[in-house]
Amino acid sequence: MLTKADLQRLRSLREKKSREELGRFVVEGEKVIAELLAAGFAFEAVYATPAWPAGGDRPPLGPAVLVEITPEEMARASHFPTPACVLAVGRITHPPLAAGALDHGLTLALDGVQDAGNVGTLLRIADWFALDRVVLSPDCADRFHPKVIHASMGSFARVTAHTADLAAVLATTRVPVLGCALTGDSVHTLPAHRDAVIVVGSEGRGLSAAVQARLTQSVTIPRFGGAESLNAGVAAAIVCDNLRRALGR
Amino acid sequence: MLTKADLQRLRSLREKKSREELGRFVVEGEKVIAELLAAGFAFEAVYATPAWPAGGDRPPLGPAVLVEITPEEMARASHFPTPACVLAVGRITHPPLAAGALDHGLTLALDGVQDAGNVGTLLRIADWFALDRVVLSPDCADRFHPKVIHASMGSFARVTAHTADLAAVLATTRVPVLGCALTGDSVHTLPAHRDAVIVVGSEGRGLSAAVQARLTQSVTIPRFGGAESLNAGVAAAIVCDNLRRALGR
Repeated sequence: MLTKADLQRLRSLREKKSREELGRFVVEGEKVIAELLAAGFAFEAVYATPAWPAGGDRPPLGPAVLVEITPEEMARASHFPTPACVLAVGRITHPPLAAGALDHGLTLALDGVQDAGNVGTLLRIADWFALDRVVLSPDCADRFHPKVIHASMGSFARVTAHTADLAAVLATTRVPVLGCALTGDSVHTLPAHRDAVIVVGSEGRGLSAAVQARLTQSVTIPRFGGAESLNAGVAAAIVCDNLRRALGR
Repeated sequence: MLTKADLQRLRSLREKKSREELGRFVVEGEKVIAELLAAGFAFEAVYATPAWPAGGDRPPLGPAVLVEITPEEMARASHFPTPACVLAVGRITHPPLAAGALDHGLTLALDGVQDAGNVGTLLRIADWFALDRVVLSPDCADRFHPKVIHASMGSFARVTAHTADLAAVLATTRVPVLGCALTGDSVHTLPAHRDAVIVVGSEGRGLSAAVQARLTQSVTIPRFGGAESLNAGVAAAIVCDNLRRALGR
């Protein structure tokens, strides 16, 4: 049984402002919640109707409290026109980005990537290539937006992500800062950087001037045909693949 | 001035069935129409309100007839809750796939890629890497779906695309048929194929059994972290990049 205040709180989490005020986010849907639980994400609460789980066994909930609700309550709490049978609430965390953190390992930095689906895809790519962290500029899509979490396919729970003033953070690192760009050195000539930052910009505007000023190299994907650009996820993935290829691991 | 029948016809084109019956498709929005006109696409008609073009000069229309309509008419013809100021109608063409066509050059084959955004992204990737053609299985998203055309960013007009029974077509080709898969030979070891088919499957189900049986090689992108998969566009782009790198052109 949910109170009116509970319902209002759950519904309010679709807004970034409410998520930040309450320090909580919400995801909805059987598949995404199963992926996150399988990745070991510690939800605070899972709200489910009797229809959940529709397929297979109920996944282990970890520390999450299970709240059984009616389909009518779900319909009121849901952010979707067609509500799912399960919805989960987690705590928003902001892991601190220690001074010098970017000096070790591989970092993917997102500069103003505003499309939530692209941000989710980029988290998934960082996960596939085992990058050490992702840093998002404050004008990226909110990484606790449900669409980001959905598109990450569980990688949201496995990748360490920070939000930070990118230009300021890049100013303090000693490692190569590689910007994905339409002109620059071919990605096929990348040396085996063990420590580096790969920066991708927004689809529409590319890299901001302040971040551009911090690059040590612009890297480009050789183009053979007529397309004007590749999307941010595709470009970042090709750079990561070439870097892993150069590293031989 | 549009008749009721005109409006009904324009609105009906949001359905695949109507598109096929009428042999026409529709796209809406200033940016996508400008991209397609710039790529030389020959629309049949462009319907625009006095607000078009909102930015810059009116692009050359080629053979298209310009029909000026009122914002009220646009609101009724539009497929969007917030109508654009321009909408264009083109003819659907089905370029024949000649016997032996796949034996020359590079082909991207899509096996059951049902997400319209993914199909558009794949057309854009085929365009970037100057592949010679794209072949879609009949269960892919309709390539005349507005979302496919939007996501292709103009590449829709530059890439030759065919819809065909993939397994049957692959059975007749002499060239290597490379399937993107989660297991197989590393994409980093790809030889310099001048003629080849790259096959990508649906995100959920992978390659169909009939297509799987026609592969000469399964190719995989080395994985280092926890993500279970990469999306079809990202996978195809990495294979294309490695193939172009092997070819040295």
